[in-house]
Amino acid sequence: MERIDQAVDPARARAWLATAVEEARAGLAEGGIPIGAALYDADGTLLGRGHNRRVQDGDPSMHAETAAFRAAGRRRTYRGTTMVTTLSPCWYCSGLVRQFGISRVVIGEAGTFHGGHNWLAGHGVEIVRLDDPECAAMMRDFVEKNPALWNEDIGE
Amino acid sequence: MERIDQAVDPARARAWLATAVEEARAGLAEGGIPIGAALYDADGTLLGRGHNRRVQDGDPSMHAETAAFRAAGRRRTYRGTTMVTTLSPCWYCSGLVRQFGISRVVIGEAGTFHGGHNWLAGHGVEIVRLDDPECAAMMRDFVEKNPALWNEDIGE
Repeated sequence: MERIDQAVDPARARAWLATAVEEARAGLAEGGIPIGAALYDADGTLLGRGHNRRVQDGDPSMHAETAAFRAAGRRRTYRGTTMVTTLSPCWYCSGLVRQFGISRVVIGEAGTFHGGHNWLAGHGVEIVRLDDPECAAMMRDFVEKNPALWNEDIGE
Repeated sequence: MERIDQAVDPARARAWLATAVEEARAGLAEGGIPIGAALYDADGTLLGRGHNRRVQDGDPSMHAETAAFRAAGRRRTYRGTTMVTTLSPCWYCSGLVRQFGISRVVIGEAGTFHGGHNWLAGHGVEIVRLDDPECAAMMRDFVEKNPALWNEDIGE
């Protein structure tokens, strides 16, 4: 995998994260697991956005990142794209990033759950951790109130 | 991840593969990429089956394994389950297997494409390679006739 030429501007990364947070909040309002994601092109174009749909659709395959990827539709290449997600991507979503050559992952927080982002970094993906307090509080509160549902979502 | 107690009976693995091959053929007949998969419970119950739907639904997130996983619906645990697939699982589908603790992967062939099955073996997943000539011929023929579509499906 080729590295992208330039590290992302922090202000831009935070603006992208806001889209993922909106998605997470929408999921929570629907009674779902509050994780959101969005896929951005190198020029800042929003390609797709989505949130976890396990509860809403009874669909265990729709994590936030896969929902955003799906919403983006078919593409010839993902070179230069950024997946922004409110939470560190699990192995399933990390595998998605690696297989399709997504260049960068912006992570709201990796404190409540730590997925495969170090593995991705070792395979040339730029990882940006924002340690966002709102993302952390939203997940911490959700996991505390819904431990069984959360464990189901990560196969534990 | 816990290892499962007993290796799969080869006749059973071949019977399960037949379901995945039916799915692959159905995908081909629809004009799609001929990869099929099925998820079986430890007692041999079919939990879900599906095939790649990139072309049919314009959905890049529906690989054969994710389609079978989705069809199986929500489950508390995947311990003891087997994912059978006509082709070695890509990183995306390998990540699915690892994250959800699927115990075994039965692979029709890994000659035309080699995904993450060695990585899974290193994480305690039982890998059964059947080196099935029909699976290999179906993929070889498809890739030869549709190289751009195949490269799109694996992000290359």
